[in-house]
Amino acid sequence: MKPLVLHPDRLFSSDPDQRSIARRLYGEVASLPIISPHGHTDPNWFADNEPFSDPANLLFTPDHYLFRMLFSQGVSLTSLGIQRLDGQVSEQNPRRIWQLLADHYHLFLGTPSRLWLDHALQDVFGIDVMLDGSSANHVYDAIDDRLKHPDYSPRALFDRFNIEFLATTESALDDLAAHDKIRDSGWSGTVVSTYRPDAVVDPEYEGFAVNLIELAKLTGEDTSHWQGYLAAHRKRRAYFIERGATASDHGHPTATTCDFEEKACQQLLDGAIAGDLTAQEADLFRGQVLTEMAAMSLEDGLVMQLHAGVVHNHNQTVMKEFGRDKGADLPASVEFSKGLKPLLDRFGNDRKLRLILFTLDETTYSRELAPLAGHYPALRVGPPWWFFDSVEGMLRHKRSIIETAGFFNTCGFNDDTRAFLSIPARHDVARRVDCRHLAELVAEHRLDEEQALGLAQSLANGLVKDAYRLTDL
Amino acid sequence: MKPLVLHPDRLFSSDPDQRSIARRLYGEVASLPIISPHGHTDPNWFADNEPFSDPANLLFTPDHYLFRMLFSQGVSLTSLGIQRLDGQVSEQNPRRIWQLLADHYHLFLGTPSRLWLDHALQDVFGIDVMLDGSSANHVYDAIDDRLKHPDYSPRALFDRFNIEFLATTESALDDLAAHDKIRDSGWSGTVVSTYRPDAVVDPEYEGFAVNLIELAKLTGEDTSHWQGYLAAHRKRRAYFIERGATASDHGHPTATTCDFEEKACQQLLDGAIAGDLTAQEADLFRGQVLTEMAAMSLEDGLVMQLHAGVVHNHNQTVMKEFGRDKGADLPASVEFSKGLKPLLDRFGNDRKLRLILFTLDETTYSRELAPLAGHYPALRVGPPWWFFDSVEGMLRHKRSIIETAGFFNTCGFNDDTRAFLSIPARHDVARRVDCRHLAELVAEHRLDEEQALGLAQSLANGLVKDAYRLTDL
Amino acid sequence: MKPLVLHPDRLFSSDPDQRSIARRLYGEVASLPIISPHGHTDPNWFADNEPFSDPANLLFTPDHYLFRMLFSQGVSLTSLGIQRLDGQVSEQNPRRIWQLLADHYHLFLGTPSRLWLDHALQDVFGIDVMLDGSSANHVYDAIDDRLKHPDYSPRALFDRFNIEFLATTESALDDLAAHDKIRDSGWSGTVVSTYRPDAVVDPEYEGFAVNLIELAKLTGEDTSHWQGYLAAHRKRRAYFIERGATASDHGHPTATTCDFEEKACQQLLDGAIAGDLTAQEADLFRGQVLTEMAAMSLEDGLVMQLHAGVVHNHNQTVMKEFGRDKGADLPASVEFSKGLKPLLDRFGNDRKLRLILFTLDETTYSRELAPLAGHYPALRVGPPWWFFDSVEGMLRHKRSIIETAGFFNTCGFNDDTRAFLSIPARHDVARRVDCRHLAELVAEHRLDEEQALGLAQSLANGLVKDAYRLTDL
Repeated sequence: MKPLVLHPDRLFSSDPDQRSIARRLYGEVASLPIISPHGHTDPNWFADNEPFSDPANLLFTPDHYLFRMLFSQGVSLTSLGIQRLDGQVSEQNPRRIWQLLADHYHLFLGTPSRLWLDHALQDVFGIDVMLDGSSANHVYDAIDDRLKHPDYSPRALFDRFNIEFLATTESALDDLAAHDKIRDSGWSGTVVSTYRPDAVVDPEYEGFAVNLIELAKLTGEDTSHWQGYLAAHRKRRAYFIERGATASDHGHPTATTCDFEEKACQQLLDGAIAGDLTAQEADLFRGQVLTEMAAMSLEDGLVMQLHAGVVHNHNQTVMKEFGRDKGADLPASVEFSKGLKPLLDRFGNDRKLRLILFTLDETTYSRELAPLAGHYPALRVGPPWWFFDSVEGMLRHKRSIIETAGFFNTCGFNDDTRAFLSIPARHDVARRVDCRHLAELVAEHRLDEEQALGLAQSLANGLVKDAYRLTDL
Repeated sequence: MKPLVLHPDRLFSSDPDQRSIARRLYGEVASLPIISPHGHTDPNWFADNEPFSDPANLLFTPDHYLFRMLFSQGVSLTSLGIQRLDGQVSEQNPRRIWQLLADHYHLFLGTPSRLWLDHALQDVFGIDVMLDGSSANHVYDAIDDRLKHPDYSPRALFDRFNIEFLATTESALDDLAAHDKIRDSGWSGTVVSTYRPDAVVDPEYEGFAVNLIELAKLTGEDTSHWQGYLAAHRKRRAYFIERGATASDHGHPTATTCDFEEKACQQLLDGAIAGDLTAQEADLFRGQVLTEMAAMSLEDGLVMQLHAGVVHNHNQTVMKEFGRDKGADLPASVEFSKGLKPLLDRFGNDRKLRLILFTLDETTYSRELAPLAGHYPALRVGPPWWFFDSVEGMLRHKRSIIETAGFFNTCGFNDDTRAFLSIPARHDVARRVDCRHLAELVAEHRLDEEQALGLAQSLANGLVKDAYRLTDL
Repeated sequence: MKPLVLHPDRLFSSDPDQRSIARRLYGEVASLPIISPHGHTDPNWFADNEPFSDPANLLFTPDHYLFRMLFSQGVSLTSLGIQRLDGQVSEQNPRRIWQLLADHYHLFLGTPSRLWLDHALQDVFGIDVMLDGSSANHVYDAIDDRLKHPDYSPRALFDRFNIEFLATTESALDDLAAHDKIRDSGWSGTVVSTYRPDAVVDPEYEGFAVNLIELAKLTGEDTSHWQGYLAAHRKRRAYFIERGATASDHGHPTATTCDFEEKACQQLLDGAIAGDLTAQEADLFRGQVLTEMAAMSLEDGLVMQLHAGVVHNHNQTVMKEFGRDKGADLPASVEFSKGLKPLLDRFGNDRKLRLILFTLDETTYSRELAPLAGHYPALRVGPPWWFFDSVEGMLRHKRSIIETAGFFNTCGFNDDTRAFLSIPARHDVARRVDCRHLAELVAEHRLDEEQALGLAQSLANGLVKDAYRLTDL
């Protein structure tokens, strides 16, 4: 078995000047508390505080980065324990799943997934051997053993990870029982939800009409009428805000926004409920709701996040056999400047609105996002998202955006993960890359080190709090 | 107050090999005269040679890079002294405007604006303290004091900046009185205009029909008939050429060109005057005129510049309240290969035509501009434009273009600025980044140092003269 | 005359850490045999083994990278010996053509063409002076002299270049007589063809209908009926496979694929033969054939290569006067995710299909190719193609793709050249850049050196064999 050693200088430039500056900057921010304003961890973990079941279900199954790579190299989803919709049995034995991951772990060389998992293995579990086919059992046993220990309960890890704030993401229809349970438990950790209304905003979402009936029940509003539909959103937003939410999140295939008269809105809503909107009309409906959400944000203060441009569930067979969210989502081209104009025409100059933009289309960094956020008071550029939550992805993001938008129209880091154990690793990677980038600017005399230190702290902390209005932290 | 010190090695790589090569290269080109073949300074400065009024109106107000950033962070345009269209009074006190800039100067960390302004403060004004809220008054006074001195008159600065050639940009309707006054003054500086006919080429320009009447008056041609319209252009071009102009400049939302029969041209012109062209027809009209301009260039030798792909005045409220050009312009996707084909089919192989292409859509660097300019004798790739007139922007431009088009299908540097005081800073940044890029190639044995030195000189000087046909320099 | 010296550390980073790691890695892969699974050399060279005629016809004329650059700077194609279609005589004297190249050789500073040609001059011909106007004759004589020597025959060079496998590319209608002659000659070199059916797949190809008649004759199938047309492909593929081909190659303007019913296929075929398809229908026809080719690949095992997104013969005058393939091809935007969906819906999860994707639109690296290949078992990302077969092009390719798709969904290197003498140079550049990139990852502690060495070997060798199913090597 080969040793696993994470080098203390990892991700810093090998240029001695830059490396020593990066070390100093990183030394000042490495242990700052983690603020995680957007992600997809399960609040029940913290509500129930049950031990995690096993290494595979903790580290592998919730991580679509991992299983999509194995799938791409011919490993079947059933052998990886992904549940089939037809009830046929998939692999049940977590040890066998773990062995498959270990056998294919070389596929992740050069990818962030490997950085994150190695970090969790070494830093969280104290594993000192490299994961591969030969060490799989040893590593499995070591993790499994620790998971039984109370030090590895969700809340204990949360505390140990030094998480100051964690936002989960729930459907508009969620009762947030887990969050209530967390709050009522007296535990000191701060875990709040994010208002994610896609299921009642996207006419193409499975069960949209049924979801609207559910929304009506929850709110006592007539969601088949436009004003009732909006009022229902207002009530649900208030429900989330009461429980600590500071943000909403909108996952849309495009960045279309609209500003129609009420009559046109009602017609779109009618069509959405009847299920007979064209694809373009569905886009307009979502775009209209986005503008309405901005209007509500001005009333209730929720920060808006727009994650635009994903083709969901591209793989027809995987969708049919295993369902949605099985690693078959792909980026799409996206256009912001024209798309957001109706919303911006109404609210773009209002500093009280905060709209954070995310993209998987890197061409928009310098062509749209930076120029937009470098002008409109309501806009900020979100951190590099998903496939770009990586060393090179972050560097391209910085280099394309900062010169036009500056640092202060950006938002620090989001981990955006459902893999709880990767949170410290992801924030560590982000801080290292931030310090590396800043060290480059210092070594090239584009900043002085005092300025760089202030920026490193802002990126780890101040900009996040400011962007997400975490004024209580 | 913190000291302001521009490091002599700034913008060079921190790699010792590269840095020492860059130093040597830069040493050979740093003090070469400035050739500024495209920009937007005001010729009246040099005609009248009046002292500049105050620091804010000299350094801040003409610089939309600066006020768009402050606006993006919630500073109102009125407080920055930007004039409202309704006559309501904006801030009049330049000292207060300067203070606002200073209070927000941290926003520019990592941006070229800060590089340029710091350079002007230190190199032009001899300021040795960093601009911030606490030093604002001190810096204001120091600049204000110097501005009263004859050494800081426009012409004195022009000479001190070692500007060998400066092109301004005027509307086709401009009488170039300022340029005549400069020439008649006996001053030795070379300041010429550039023919910018957008106001009489773009049917969507405010007052297009009125502008055409004005064009008719100026030329004695019937601009409502296609041949008269073209003849009027020919006369105005000749007028500009007599006064030293060597280039025309065309700011178009797309890179569309057309090659229609005269009848279709007349119909488009009729519609343009009547104001009833569709957006697509307006695009065709502009595209047809672009091809006609190429034909005229073959006759009269003006170098054509095409600045394609800008969404002007995206912010509806700012446009309504403050008018155009208030920092609300955005890049747009642009397509050159199909768009330019009609023009290239006619003139693309004619070496006597020179068409320089500019883009704000970086995806076109490697996909369109470099392959086009690396094939068509009539084409050259312009320098990185606007948001990309920056360290990273220049490096991406070089790395995406040179390997396909070579250095000799590029054009050196344009400052393209209305901020006169930033001219030496911008050229200095460009020369530093050029030398840095070349030093990288030398240190990696992709060029030898003698070749790199020749290229550094060409980029600062020879390629610019050649591209803009400045044969007298 | 200046000396020509290729530095042993060329293309490595100048950072001492990275450089020494790169040296060690490169030392292990520099002399591995060349596997060239995709290219356009002429099999008759190896069949006939005649001496190459002269320096210009060997090194210049087959290389459109070279003559497009000279053309872009005003050198006429006739003076470069490019044959006119009207029979008018072009330059016949290779020494004069060579002189023109030498006079303009500075145009290639910073381009891969210069790297390749310098490498051939020094390494293949032992020339020790730099090519320029003054050395042109000397260099010409030296090469010309060596070409008469048997050590410089095509086969001798093939052996000296240490080529283990070379694929050429022939039309579906080719009889592969050259390949038969090679095989029958008893020579040990492995040269096989690649099935390239564009002439009988693309309704917009010159002579498509005639080509289909030819295809019918060759196969005894009725190519005017859909099933006969497909059967004819099957027979030709079998013919190629019998002669060692392991791959097909498809050069399409888009990445469209289709999956129509037979009746619709027949209608498209009818229209294609009649020559009355619209541009969009022609795209659908090609897209349907692509899907059929995938089906056939599942039967006969040919690896599919899709080279998508080229505008061929953009220069109208050059096309009219000199014909196709005269350096006037340009990249185009291309979309893969939607385009490939019909094919992927049928076969994307089948590991037995291998479809390698190439693009000239770099925006697709991170937005489409890496996410697609990082999910679908049937897909791999091809190496950087054409204008991106360059140092910076390769680095951008790696940095944009590996973090999402990993190394093992890529395919090593293709030289894709018709310039035989550049093959060792191109593979050397690729290996150097691979080692440089890996050295960066090692120096930044993103890989350890043992992992990097394994990857360097895979990139030079294992991944190529695996991607192209060269199981016998």
